[in-house]
Parts: sequence; structure tokens; C-alpha cells
Amino acid sequence: MPLVRIEVIKGRSETDLVAIGNAIHRALVECLNVPERDHFQIITEHSAGRLLYDSGYLGIARTDGIVFVQVFLSAGRTTEQKKAFYARVAGLLASEARVAPGDAIIVLVENTREDWSFGRGVAQYLELPMEQWK
Amino acid sequence: MPLVRIEVIKGRSETDLVAIGNAIHRALVECLNVPERDHFQIITEHSAGRLLYDSGYLGIARTDGIVFVQVFLSAGRTTEQKKAFYARVAGLLASEARVAPGDAIIVLVENTREDWSFGRGVAQYLELPMEQWK
Amino acid sequence: MPLVRIEVIKGRSETDLVAIGNAIHRALVECLNVPERDHFQIITEHSAGRLLYDSGYLGIARTDGIVFVQVFLSAGRTTEQKKAFYARVAGLLASEARVAPGDAIIVLVENTREDWSFGRGVAQYLELPMEQWK
Repeated sequence: MPLVRIEVIKGRSETDLVAIGNAIHRALVECLNVPERDHFQIITEHSAGRLLYDSGYLGIARTDGIVFVQVFLSAGRTTEQKKAFYARVAGLLASEARVAPGDAIIVLVENTREDWSFGRGVAQYLELPMEQWK
Repeated sequence: MPLVRIEVIKGRSETDLVAIGNAIHRALVECLNVPERDHFQIITEHSAGRLLYDSGYLGIARTDGIVFVQVFLSAGRTTEQKKAFYARVAGLLASEARVAPGDAIIVLVENTREDWSFGRGVAQYLELPMEQWK
Repeated sequence: MPLVRIEVIKGRSETDLVAIGNAIHRALVECLNVPERDHFQIITEHSAGRLLYDSGYLGIARTDGIVFVQVFLSAGRTTEQKKAFYARVAGLLASEARVAPGDAIIVLVENTREDWSFGRGVAQYLELPMEQWK
């Protein structure tokens, strides 16, 4: 269900970029009930000067190692699930992908189940019972 | 009203990219009451490995010919209109732009009429009667 | 709180791109109560033919100098604030960054305060009192 947009500044290794995508997906699966195979991500590398961030807003030190994670997903997760997700993303990005915890910026944008088609022109989440979402 | 973000993997011809944009716009006009001239799209080509998708989620075979279509639009369309739109996008992408039906991924994100300015610093959808939206 | 996506066609000077980002941020601060340091933007330059727009929709003349501004932000602004924001963006883009008023396209997408983490895996807007948002 989620579409994930990941933005970084150029210069990371291929290995680290793969690890970033995997870490975010794992946190989605563990904390937000996303099916394992529901993995759709766009990773974009930007020149310095095209990804702008404040290096101290809210008392958090940020660096050019910043990662913007924007997740579009259906509504329905609780506040507690979202909080667990943020913590898990920051934790996994640090342990698996060498991203400093202060550099993990996460934004959720919600829509509804009828707002998705995964191919063949069908609104699968309206047509398929949830047990078959895999 | 819609802003459409289209993402593909590099390698398609210019002709096919134009056809993809046109197909999606035509489906918006036909199925979601979008004015013909309300045509605003961003097409981004990504390297393989930057546009990640699952090749079998929900039982649909997907390939590197995948097309992500994210449509930001004002709320107000019915479920039936959205379902018709998905079917029309997949159909037109196949017939006009050589996209396999399984490769058409569509996501809608809704806002409201007051969330749009089409230039000159004015919220046109609040100021102009709907008959003049053309 | 806002994440701002700015899209232009290639060919603008570095100075003008910086001025565009600054103009939009200043309008956010002045009109939508965004904290000065809450500055997070992604600027993407596209080839002609990848940023599609209608040159006359709603009676406004647009050119290849077009700037798409998509602002993701928490809900809570009034209609009047949004209208003031559009006018201020168009005004500042014209006076500070050589963007024609007709070329300023603005789209807002709202979420809620619990949908943001600014680093360290914490949902800051749920945890920090508003007086500390700086």
C-alpha cells in the first residue's frame, strides 16, 4: 500500500542506498502491518544545494547525510504505530545503513484504500479480501 | 486540478513517454471530469535500482516497464469514478503507449479546492465559477 | 513542518534557484506560521518535455519559466491564510527570483502533526510543546 519516496544527497554507495531502502521497508512491515511484498519505492539522489534542510531545527543536528522519507499510505494506523515506525526507521537506518539518527526525516501522507491500483486497472484493495494481500 | 507525477525506468523512447503522459491525461478527462486544458504533469526517468517494485504482489506480474502514476487532485470523485479511471489508464497505456497492464501502478492523493493556485497568486477554484474552468 | 517540492525546467541560474527557495520559505514563515528554521525543500530541475503544463488554462499565460511548488504541511491553516500565502509566493517570486506571476503554480497537501518526524525517530510535534518549535 505504501509508495515511498526517498531522497538523499549524491555520494552514497550503492550498498548503502540498497540498505536504506531495505531498512525503511522492514520498518513498514514490522510496525505498520505492510505486507512483505508490498514494496514500492523511489530513491532519488540530488546535488548538494537541491536538498535543503535546517541543520538545527527542533534541537536536532543534521548533516549532508540527510535522508528524506515520504510515505504515502492508506489511513488506519494509530498514533502509537506511527511513533513505533519512526523509532524503528531511525534505528534500522543507523544500524544497517550508516545514517545518523538525526538525519532521518520522515513524513507520512494518508489516503484511502480506494486510492490504489497495483496493476491491470483494478482497485485491488476494494476487490480482494485482505487475507490475499500478499 | 490534478498534478500528476509519472515515474519510469530509463530507456523508453521519447514517443512512448509522450504517449504515456497523453494517455493518463485522457483518462483524467474522460473519467474524472478534469478539464481538457488542466494538464500539469511531471515525468521522471530513473536508473534501474532507483525505482523499486515487487514483481508479484497481489498476483500481478510486473516488469521494468513499470509506470508509477501519482495523481494529486481535489476530493469529490466517487469510488465508481476512481475505478473507471484505473481501468481506463491501464487500457490506454496498453493501447497507446505499449505499457503492459500489470505495469500500471496508480495512486491518488486528495486535497481540497482551496489548496490550488494556478498562477498570479490566486486560488482560482475559490474565485472562478466552475463554468469558467477551461 | 512543511516539506516543499519545487520543480523547474533546466536553465535557471544558481542564484535564481536559491532565490526561488528563499522566496517560498519566506512566504511560509510570513503567511502560514511556519518557524523560520523549519526549512526543508527539494528542488528538481527537469528537461523540457518532462515538466508539462498548459499555457493558458484558466486564462493565465504560462511559459517555460514555470515553477511548480508543492507544499506538504499539517492541516490547520485557514482559507484566508492560504490565499495570503499564494499571493505572497507569487509576489516574492516575481520581485526576488524573476519568476513571472503566471508561472507560479502552488499545490498544498495536508496531513496531521503526528505524521512528522524530524530526526532521532521521534514524533516531535506530539512530544514538544509548540513554544519550542524553533
